[in-house]
Amino acid sequence: MTSQYLPGLAGVPATKSNISDIDGEKGLLAYRGYDIRVLAEQSTFEETSLLLLDGSLPTSDELAEFDTQLKGERRVKYNIREMMKYLPATGHPMEMLQTAVASLGMFYGGEEVLTESYGSEDLYYVHSMSVKIIARMATIVAMWEHVRNGYDPIEPRRDLSHAENFLYMLRGYEPDELESRIMDACLIMHAEHTINASTFAAMVCASTLASPFLVIAAAIGTLAGPLHGGANQRVVSMLEEIGRPENVKDWLDMKQGEKEVIWGMGHREYKTKDPRATILQKMMMEWAEKHGNLSPMFETALALEEACEERLGPKGVYPNVDYYSGILYTEMGIPPDQFTPIFAVSRIAGWMAHWREQLSDNRIFRPTQIYTGEAPREYVSIDKR
Amino acid sequence: MTSQYLPGLAGVPATKSNISDIDGEKGLLAYRGYDIRVLAEQSTFEETSLLLLDGSLPTSDELAEFDTQLKGERRVKYNIREMMKYLPATGHPMEMLQTAVASLGMFYGGEEVLTESYGSEDLYYVHSMSVKIIARMATIVAMWEHVRNGYDPIEPRRDLSHAENFLYMLRGYEPDELESRIMDACLIMHAEHTINASTFAAMVCASTLASPFLVIAAAIGTLAGPLHGGANQRVVSMLEEIGRPENVKDWLDMKQGEKEVIWGMGHREYKTKDPRATILQKMMMEWAEKHGNLSPMFETALALEEACEERLGPKGVYPNVDYYSGILYTEMGIPPDQFTPIFAVSRIAGWMAHWREQLSDNRIFRPTQIYTGEAPREYVSIDKR
Repeated sequence: MTSQYLPGLAGVPATKSNISDIDGEKGLLAYRGYDIRVLAEQSTFEETSLLLLDGSLPTSDELAEFDTQLKGERRVKYNIREMMKYLPATGHPMEMLQTAVASLGMFYGGEEVLTESYGSEDLYYVHSMSVKIIARMATIVAMWEHVRNGYDPIEPRRDLSHAENFLYMLRGYEPDELESRIMDACLIMHAEHTINASTFAAMVCASTLASPFLVIAAAIGTLAGPLHGGANQRVVSMLEEIGRPENVKDWLDMKQGEKEVIWGMGHREYKTKDPRATILQKMMMEWAEKHGNLSPMFETALALEEACEERLGPKGVYPNVDYYSGILYTEMGIPPDQFTPIFAVSRIAGWMAHWREQLSDNRIFRPTQIYTGEAPREYVSIDKR
Repeated sequence: MTSQYLPGLAGVPATKSNISDIDGEKGLLAYRGYDIRVLAEQSTFEETSLLLLDGSLPTSDELAEFDTQLKGERRVKYNIREMMKYLPATGHPMEMLQTAVASLGMFYGGEEVLTESYGSEDLYYVHSMSVKIIARMATIVAMWEHVRNGYDPIEPRRDLSHAENFLYMLRGYEPDELESRIMDACLIMHAEHTINASTFAAMVCASTLASPFLVIAAAIGTLAGPLHGGANQRVVSMLEEIGRPENVKDWLDMKQGEKEVIWGMGHREYKTKDPRATILQKMMMEWAEKHGNLSPMFETALALEEACEERLGPKGVYPNVDYYSGILYTEMGIPPDQFTPIFAVSRIAGWMAHWREQLSDNRIFRPTQIYTGEAPREYVSIDKR
């Protein structure tokens, strides 16, 4: 009871973890020891997910097996599709996602109760649940894009990678090679980022031995908060507000005068450039080269980046991963309110890894409070108040 | 970064709070300074909810207004009923509850984004959301009992109190006076209990400024974990296992030999008797007196209590609130898997109070981790593994 009170538990260690590590001074992020920049360029979302779950890079056989497992779990029961039809099209896709994932537990969850010390059998359970949920997150997010517009969803295909199939189901046509590579890299780079609010919510929920569907629904609800997920959606609103590249300087003068946040610039964890931004910036340049005729938003983004680097670069304020991903998703024709759901399609890999880690050395989260309320007082009956 | 690592954040203060306080040595629980035993006997769930939300006992006008507001929000849209029909009857009611509450946000949530410092207008928003959710939790739990059995749900009535209406909707007939009083007391006594895992999950989710439906869905998922909610359900399974009063002593010998948990006995927060148990024990005696012809489960429970008091009483192991509530709910004909949902129907008052308190002085929860994983290592391409 003698611990110091630190609002938001800032700087308070809540767990020991093997999953990922950030070196903010050097601008490094590593999953299980592997540099995110290398993973984004050389790995796939499937491989990275298995790395996050198991702790080591899989052999080609192990990866092929995992890939087959994921492909086998892409479909979602028609009851869930029918349920979705009763949800208002005006609701936020993150609320839909929380609803649908929570309902999955009723179809697949069973009555399994985990014990505090689980053996190899439970590891099988943990792995199979991870596959079921990782595969279906993508399907559910893509389904909603069709259902909310009044169309039947697109059935998943088994001949496409996770990223390809997701884009195919989301938009109804196969992505080209560059689009697939960008989506794959985005899924890899958003998959894990140490202990943040949504991962922490998953851990708190998991610590009661709740089923993984309940746990992931808790994480989705937390990611949906505007202080957590949603930064890339705001980047796009900001770029729409600026409108054209020639407006950038005036807009920036105004914002700097008001000391307002410039969305997608800087990151509280990194003192130097967000390592993930470097990769996406390259991909953005590839996109620009390939498509030549750029949209006003894309040109505005390039002009804003240049202006920010001129003015803010020395202070270490560079575009982060959200800046580029928002622009690239927009170029791919994805509606901005689907950006946070896509974040969840990726982060599910990290959440499942933390779920597994939590169970491997579990203790229920039960912090204390500093009571600052009323001292004991006498109840007064209502006629005497 | 120098804070000590305490698993489960045990003893680490996560917040300052005015809502409730436990004195484990004296066996006291107080909501906003008022003794739970007095509230359970003299207050109502409606009044206690408003006390938890606002911080003081309402005048009769304030209470009447709140009561009218709750009654006005008891109905649930038919889309939610239709959605429920697609959920498997075999799923756990807590998963249904998380699904349905998450979906509510799409109907009522809108696109409100809270700011970190909210004024009176936001307090109106916070209050109206609290009413919407408190009222509907009871309706949803009661609806499911009918839908999962293939029947249309019972429409809520405006001429009944919250507890009466809940029992009416759940079972399809009006409760008698004793049943209503017991349910009201149970709802009062489970409404709040400082920072536990589900309340903490709600706070973590709320700290991202997620909508209250997302927040409550996160809390429901956490309460569903077998280490958190669900103890009263286990009391009933235990009593069924014992079967008859004459089996109690042998059963107890066996369990004590194996040093196993006796469900519903003792409470980690209280060194003496759980103050809530005293009230329920009285009500159980009233029930016994009124009904005379007791069920074997009830008689077994009385025999087990007596045997435990004889053997374990000196160690301070007494029946807790879960022990009596499980038995009383069973006597009222409520299925055991609905006990945790009923816990949520009550605890929603505390969760909404903590949501409000969190927003009033918000800081996003972002604890740290102690990284115990691999040091930076080189990626090896798949053909070389």
